[in-house]
Amino acid sequence: MRRSFQGTAMQEFDLSQISKAAERLRPYVTRTPVLTSPMLDAAAGCSVFVKAESLQKTGSFKIRGALNKMLSMPDELLQRGVITYSAGNHGQAVAAGAKLVGCKSVIVLPDNAPTIKVENCRWWGAEIVLYNPQTQDRADVVDRIVAERGMTFISPFDDFDVMAGQGTAGLELCEQLEALEVVPDVLIVNCSGGGLSSGVITAVKAKFPDVEACIVEAAGFEKMAAYLESGTPERIKGSPVTIMDGIAGPATGAKTLSVLKRHGVRCLSVADDDAIGAMNAAFRWLKLVLEPGGAASLAAVFKYRGQLAGRNVAIVSSGGNVDPGVFAKSLS
Amino acid sequence: MRRSFQGTAMQEFDLSQISKAAERLRPYVTRTPVLTSPMLDAAAGCSVFVKAESLQKTGSFKIRGALNKMLSMPDELLQRGVITYSAGNHGQAVAAGAKLVGCKSVIVLPDNAPTIKVENCRWWGAEIVLYNPQTQDRADVVDRIVAERGMTFISPFDDFDVMAGQGTAGLELCEQLEALEVVPDVLIVNCSGGGLSSGVITAVKAKFPDVEACIVEAAGFEKMAAYLESGTPERIKGSPVTIMDGIAGPATGAKTLSVLKRHGVRCLSVADDDAIGAMNAAFRWLKLVLEPGGAASLAAVFKYRGQLAGRNVAIVSSGGNVDPGVFAKSLS
Repeated sequence: MRRSFQGTAMQEFDLSQISKAAERLRPYVTRTPVLTSPMLDAAAGCSVFVKAESLQKTGSFKIRGALNKMLSMPDELLQRGVITYSAGNHGQAVAAGAKLVGCKSVIVLPDNAPTIKVENCRWWGAEIVLYNPQTQDRADVVDRIVAERGMTFISPFDDFDVMAGQGTAGLELCEQLEALEVVPDVLIVNCSGGGLSSGVITAVKAKFPDVEACIVEAAGFEKMAAYLESGTPERIKGSPVTIMDGIAGPATGAKTLSVLKRHGVRCLSVADDDAIGAMNAAFRWLKLVLEPGGAASLAAVFKYRGQLAGRNVAIVSSGGNVDPGVFAKSLS
Repeated sequence: MRRSFQGTAMQEFDLSQISKAAERLRPYVTRTPVLTSPMLDAAAGCSVFVKAESLQKTGSFKIRGALNKMLSMPDELLQRGVITYSAGNHGQAVAAGAKLVGCKSVIVLPDNAPTIKVENCRWWGAEIVLYNPQTQDRADVVDRIVAERGMTFISPFDDFDVMAGQGTAGLELCEQLEALEVVPDVLIVNCSGGGLSSGVITAVKAKFPDVEACIVEAAGFEKMAAYLESGTPERIKGSPVTIMDGIAGPATGAKTLSVLKRHGVRCLSVADDDAIGAMNAAFRWLKLVLEPGGAASLAAVFKYRGQLAGRNVAIVSSGGNVDPGVFAKSLS
């Protein structure tokens, strides 16, 4: 990659990559709807525009980034296959994306991963490599396979191609808001590593430069907020527990950080109870199944209602992969 | 209405009304997505294309027909307001539609109607008129108000404007299937009075004349199947009970019958357990909240799998207004 002396994300990541990603992805991804509900608006005290990425293929936005990475690779690399470590939405997206483009995939999982997640990855045709989390580091396992088999590692977030792919959800959101003749005042995007938020905020800021861009993290996992404040990668403090597993990863990214920093995002956070309440709101007023982490942005709409009153608030509801037992908790 | 000597539904109802309705409705309704899932396809043994009308405004397709009726009325009539009898999806749609176009609405409800349904209609600004179902006939109550106040009755189904409005879901479905480069072999639409099915089947048959058009009714409530067979309106036999309240109305329509008859539809039916299973499938693979009656077409995909194997099956998932307690049953 070419770098200027002051090589920043400014040069490296902008709308043009996201637009190119949108062209590549068009035949493969679902153009998810932007949903509204007057009853939801009345309850929230603002006008909410929900980009429902829970309805995306594989049940989350992750297929956008994984597929864009694969479709950006030279054929000879793609033929050797792709590899990642994640039993969650990213792992399933890499496995599904590989099946769609017709390449091999390896998913590296701890040997205590839930059977259902292992089976999901296998269902898409992925080869599963198990490791012992007590004695092995997953990065080492991946590095060994990359060296031996020439496979390409697909980062869950810290990769411009992945970020550009996720950003296509933001590009669609802009087009859909324009069709509704709505100018968003506030944008709220779920954030863990920052792949979705950096991509979506870049796209939406390009079209609506005055939008107030916010990320929302799981309480106890405010990695990006800490990183943005200190300027150095921060570790999670203590041993927090959350049902928002989709946004409770241990690390955030340097590339994603640089993009979010440039946009001057505001950092929000929500707790498990907020997420459960938002899942109930999505069930009741939007008829959407959201997973706890995927409901964080809707949870923020209610938690920060005092600051959002009367405004146009665009959010991304990022995923719907939730166990029935967890979802049942949101119904009572 | 002008009638030829052989005045049939052929002259009275065709694609042109549906196309005009689509123009009228464009600013008001959500273009709901057509969703697919390889995992669902594998479980069902065919390729399923789900038009998700549960994501429509007010949580069901009903807003299409109600709004098209209102938007087709002369201004002077519209100013006197609209009236209907239904505490369910149609009543909410009439109330919401009236609010959208800025006219008055009256919803006639039995005095034992569930509070939540009464409140929903009131929320949209409707005036509620209660009657005693032991001593009064709801049609008489409606007729009296129509006579006194010059309001226009909006039929839940047996009205060409209502049918044309519901048909716009089918028109969108066709456009979306064409964008996916898919030719449907089979179309399955939920049916009670027949407003949705007559409209959608007319639209889809016009674009895909070779499609096998099916309606699906709730077991015990196969009014349309009986009517199509005998040629005379049939009453429900016995006192069947179902959780599929959305498609368990007591009557079907003459106009809807004539349209469905012309298209030579095939009649399917599903039981409560089938609907619960389909709600679970929609939760798991599509991330959709479906009400039992709204899930009937998906239930039929599984029940009739032997006859659908390997085919392209387009369905309309018609609504998502379900009590949390009923939905919870589908999660276990």
